[in-house]
Amino acid sequence: MASTATTLKGQPLDKAALESMLRRRMFYTPSFEIYGGVSGLYDYGPPGCSLQANIVDAWRKHFILEEDMLEVDCSVLTPHEVLKTSGHVDKFADWMCKDPKNGEILRADHFVEDVLELRLRGDKEARGLKIEEKEEDAKKKKKKTKGQEAVKLEDAVVQEYEEILAQIDNYNGQQLGDLIIKHDLKNPATGTSIGPSSNLPGYLRPETAQGQFLNFAKLLEFNTGSMPFASASIGKSYRNEISPRAGLLRVREFLMAEIEHYVDPEGHKKHHRFHEVEDIELVLLDRDTQLSGKTTVKKVAIGQAVKSGLVDNETLGYFLARIHLFLKKIGVDQSKIRFRQHMANEMAHYACDCWDAELLTSTGWVECVGCADRSAYDLTVHAKKTGAPLIVRERLDEPRVIEEWDVEIEKKKFGPFYKKDGKTIESAILTTSQEQRGVLAKEMEANGKVVVDVPGVKDGKVEVSKDLLAIKWIKRTENTREYTPNVIEPSFGIGRILYSLIEHNYWTRGSDGGDEARSVLSFPPSIAPTKVLIVPLSSNKDFAPFTRKLSQKLRAAGLSSRIDDSSATIGKRYSRNDELGTPFGITIDFQTLKDNTVTLRERDSTRQVRASEDEIIAAIKSLVEGNKTWQDTETELPIFEGQELEIR
Amino acid sequence: MASTATTLKGQPLDKAALESMLRRRMFYTPSFEIYGGVSGLYDYGPPGCSLQANIVDAWRKHFILEEDMLEVDCSVLTPHEVLKTSGHVDKFADWMCKDPKNGEILRADHFVEDVLELRLRGDKEARGLKIEEKEEDAKKKKKKTKGQEAVKLEDAVVQEYEEILAQIDNYNGQQLGDLIIKHDLKNPATGTSIGPSSNLPGYLRPETAQGQFLNFAKLLEFNTGSMPFASASIGKSYRNEISPRAGLLRVREFLMAEIEHYVDPEGHKKHHRFHEVEDIELVLLDRDTQLSGKTTVKKVAIGQAVKSGLVDNETLGYFLARIHLFLKKIGVDQSKIRFRQHMANEMAHYACDCWDAELLTSTGWVECVGCADRSAYDLTVHAKKTGAPLIVRERLDEPRVIEEWDVEIEKKKFGPFYKKDGKTIESAILTTSQEQRGVLAKEMEANGKVVVDVPGVKDGKVEVSKDLLAIKWIKRTENTREYTPNVIEPSFGIGRILYSLIEHNYWTRGSDGGDEARSVLSFPPSIAPTKVLIVPLSSNKDFAPFTRKLSQKLRAAGLSSRIDDSSATIGKRYSRNDELGTPFGITIDFQTLKDNTVTLRERDSTRQVRASEDEIIAAIKSLVEGNKTWQDTETELPIFEGQELEIR
Repeated sequence: MASTATTLKGQPLDKAALESMLRRRMFYTPSFEIYGGVSGLYDYGPPGCSLQANIVDAWRKHFILEEDMLEVDCSVLTPHEVLKTSGHVDKFADWMCKDPKNGEILRADHFVEDVLELRLRGDKEARGLKIEEKEEDAKKKKKKTKGQEAVKLEDAVVQEYEEILAQIDNYNGQQLGDLIIKHDLKNPATGTSIGPSSNLPGYLRPETAQGQFLNFAKLLEFNTGSMPFASASIGKSYRNEISPRAGLLRVREFLMAEIEHYVDPEGHKKHHRFHEVEDIELVLLDRDTQLSGKTTVKKVAIGQAVKSGLVDNETLGYFLARIHLFLKKIGVDQSKIRFRQHMANEMAHYACDCWDAELLTSTGWVECVGCADRSAYDLTVHAKKTGAPLIVRERLDEPRVIEEWDVEIEKKKFGPFYKKDGKTIESAILTTSQEQRGVLAKEMEANGKVVVDVPGVKDGKVEVSKDLLAIKWIKRTENTREYTPNVIEPSFGIGRILYSLIEHNYWTRGSDGGDEARSVLSFPPSIAPTKVLIVPLSSNKDFAPFTRKLSQKLRAAGLSSRIDDSSATIGKRYSRNDELGTPFGITIDFQTLKDNTVTLRERDSTRQVRASEDEIIAAIKSLVEGNKTWQDTETELPIFEGQELEIR
Repeated sequence: MASTATTLKGQPLDKAALESMLRRRMFYTPSFEIYGGVSGLYDYGPPGCSLQANIVDAWRKHFILEEDMLEVDCSVLTPHEVLKTSGHVDKFADWMCKDPKNGEILRADHFVEDVLELRLRGDKEARGLKIEEKEEDAKKKKKKTKGQEAVKLEDAVVQEYEEILAQIDNYNGQQLGDLIIKHDLKNPATGTSIGPSSNLPGYLRPETAQGQFLNFAKLLEFNTGSMPFASASIGKSYRNEISPRAGLLRVREFLMAEIEHYVDPEGHKKHHRFHEVEDIELVLLDRDTQLSGKTTVKKVAIGQAVKSGLVDNETLGYFLARIHLFLKKIGVDQSKIRFRQHMANEMAHYACDCWDAELLTSTGWVECVGCADRSAYDLTVHAKKTGAPLIVRERLDEPRVIEEWDVEIEKKKFGPFYKKDGKTIESAILTTSQEQRGVLAKEMEANGKVVVDVPGVKDGKVEVSKDLLAIKWIKRTENTREYTPNVIEPSFGIGRILYSLIEHNYWTRGSDGGDEARSVLSFPPSIAPTKVLIVPLSSNKDFAPFTRKLSQKLRAAGLSSRIDDSSATIGKRYSRNDELGTPFGITIDFQTLKDNTVTLRERDSTRQVRASEDEIIAAIKSLVEGNKTWQDTETELPIFEGQELEIR
């Protein structure tokens, strides 16, 4: 589902230029590159590392601190038994297909997706339409295009392909196999040799969630037993991507931030702060739309979406809105976000509803945040496996009177009567439902005996007489209530968000009538890797003490800065920092030495104001904390012109 | 080298009580405990996670921001080839020994250490001396003591054992074997079954350093080519501890914070900020003292230590002092810290000097920070293996004229003359030193031929005549200089620091004449997991809006808080938070509802002041930022008495 990518200013995105800039500025770089690299592994250089830290910091404030979540840091190494119980060992078995020619093994869904996209590409070319840029380096692109002639398809075929792609995540293995045969799909990637690589050991966690679940009982106790509450964790997780590609979007090692919100399943999972977010409008792509082969979205207030049943419950809806607010805060382009509901086959079997926050990038819509209602699944399976009581015990305000059918077995006679089958028959009786017991009670009253279904014993039917079994309607009083909480899980892929954020905030001065070669990353000041660039006018020794002092003052004010006292022109130095996304620049000139004033430059407009050092620092602090806009600053401090004419 | 552990107030440390408290308050907990746990893996609960985050935050400010270091975040997964080149694959081969009875495999140095310590313990018992507490749970301790009768040793034997223990890290495998035979050491640990567990895969990094080294060329470019500079990284690393034990002190997965400071090896590795720290006094345990079997320390100003050559160079000394300042800032007990120099065998073969910051805990002195001069080793081996130029190229201000002996081989004749030995002989000639060349030049002039040492060819001596070889004194001019930087590496084990910090700040109210059962963790406010506890006097509904508002105001001021509105008494609630190390408590009572004043309680003194909500928030901010002390606060705000009499 690729689409024509645009910059922040709406111009076509030159992916090659962006990637070259990211490499040059060391946002990230392939790991172990001097050893030839390992696919799917990346190192973050200083600006990437700082950007990542700022996103994580914003996340911690927006979620953990805002809602008093319990943050934990759990082991990455995980025993096989834990992941077997959680279902990961089985779940992570993807449907694969094998190229009979070269024996290459490929993920079946990726294979179908690749071939159909390629054919649609060939069709567009044949029709003389503009072809969207895909995430591939020039070399690969060439090879890939080579594999496909420009062949026009019938309109009906184009539509069928597009419908398949819209629901590609909803096919099971058999269906993928059928598609491959029906459409005669063949491996075009003769040049690429991305085969399955050495497996990751099973005991590197695939998500931070399991560590949180295993600590549920302790966390509940730490929270003095009160519900609802949430735990949260930020840490690395690992997946054995068969064919890592697409840069930071599909990697083997990645930073996750996950919340597990534990909620009482009774009472429709209300959330006490839902009213704060109910009017927030989200762009939704629902399950039914996708199943009909379309990708039409609708904008709906979350309150309405929950009311109509489109989003399953308030707690899930609350987090969808909070996720939206978070992504907006860190600088996601509001025209490039949608929430896509999972289709039935796509969703884990235990989940009752799941939505992904997807961001539009040059590789299409990318799943960046998942928000699932995992029901009681995880806590239940771990409790069952280990015997640990992963439940909530609540004292009831008023004792609860329960009336129900009870079965009583006359043990002394029962065992000797049925001998070796006794246990099996007893177990079959004890697991009968209330409804079945009602029927059996009537039967017993009428006949003095009942016939019970016991698979595996005799012909599957066993007679039990009333001297061996009593079935009574009883009344009992409960003072406490026990339940397994349900879990709502917002789960963030930090690397994917980081990459999307870069694309969303990238543009070139060309779109403003300036130099097309000058790139800018317009991160919001709070997220920008460095807040201030300090630029002495020249390498004159007199500037050094002032530069040092200013850098110390900024540090004391909690503002990160870097000094560029290289011999490059002011314009070149600012240009370099536009590429790093540094929102503010301070120039120190000869006037500064006389009257302690400096100029402050804003990255996006390249406009400047001039005032005393302390006024400028205060202005930057307000701008970074989001209390003021650049417009405010221009009205409060004198505009400065000159000096930087060369920049645009 | 265990010693009698004490609390912050100098009383004997009750390890069992401390551990029970840490478990109860969920500072950390064995990972996967409900699955039976995995030795050497721990999860941090909310207070531990927050304490860790605050230590990391302080570290980032103290090192990275203060010195504009380039922070990177590199992959944990690491190919075998990288770790083979770095020497880790070989280095991590520890000397092992095998118990012939049960086949158990043990690390030889740990084995010798354990047995000798046990014998010394038996000796003390026999002499009726107090026995120090060791880090073991009650069960293990019992078993361990069982293995050793109270046997008095001869004084000379006690001294010999103590000398061996003082230099236990300096023995190689042969020497450890000799010790085992000489002293007839036998495995006492019949009850403990800590065998080697499944190996960690070779490709989980054992340190963050290698990722930094591999990116050296890019980092240098990012730093616009200027030297010296430092990179830094905070992340998880892994070691396959054969016998994890001692809680957080010896684990398989741990958080590290590492700095790689790149420095020009010419000019004695001066540091431009050394003068700022030269008067700082450190407690040093040097190499010679340890080799003489003693552990006597001396307090020396770092300026003096560098001057006398005890510490190899200024840059190394600068970081030792900065490490000292960091540990002091976060709350390390100044009477429980020393810097221990590595002995020759203990040090990696490439290092020219290495010191560990060790902190005294109930398990003895624990290595928490290593500070090594790794010389040019790492960059050299990776460059050699990969061909990547991990070097600095510097334009010389003035061209450098070099005069030296040059050898010139007459290739056309040389090869045919020596045939198959040609290459070997040529290589031997080319690798001669300047000094040797001087001698050879004289020999050549005198005899018209020279005799060169070529191991493996003929009898190791080869005659070379002057028509095959010329040795000349030449002069050449260089405009650039190329060198491989040396690396000074301060490397922090965050988990070990965190655990030591807990022990150093732990005490009970008993030592102040209060209740012995009431424990306190006196973390500095900046490091404490939570800054403020909010306590409404009772569960009266009228307090709720005020409590919520106060919590929001604190959050806006950047101060983390937790509300305890449980039904426990005020005293019990404060007591719980003393155990969590929360430095300040705010009580909301009926007076608050009338005049908006609240009381502020200080954890260590349990004294209180009362003022308006805003004054109290401002006071806490100053206290947490370290601008004011509690004494200042008591002079500025009215003392409040009453209410909390029950606490002590």
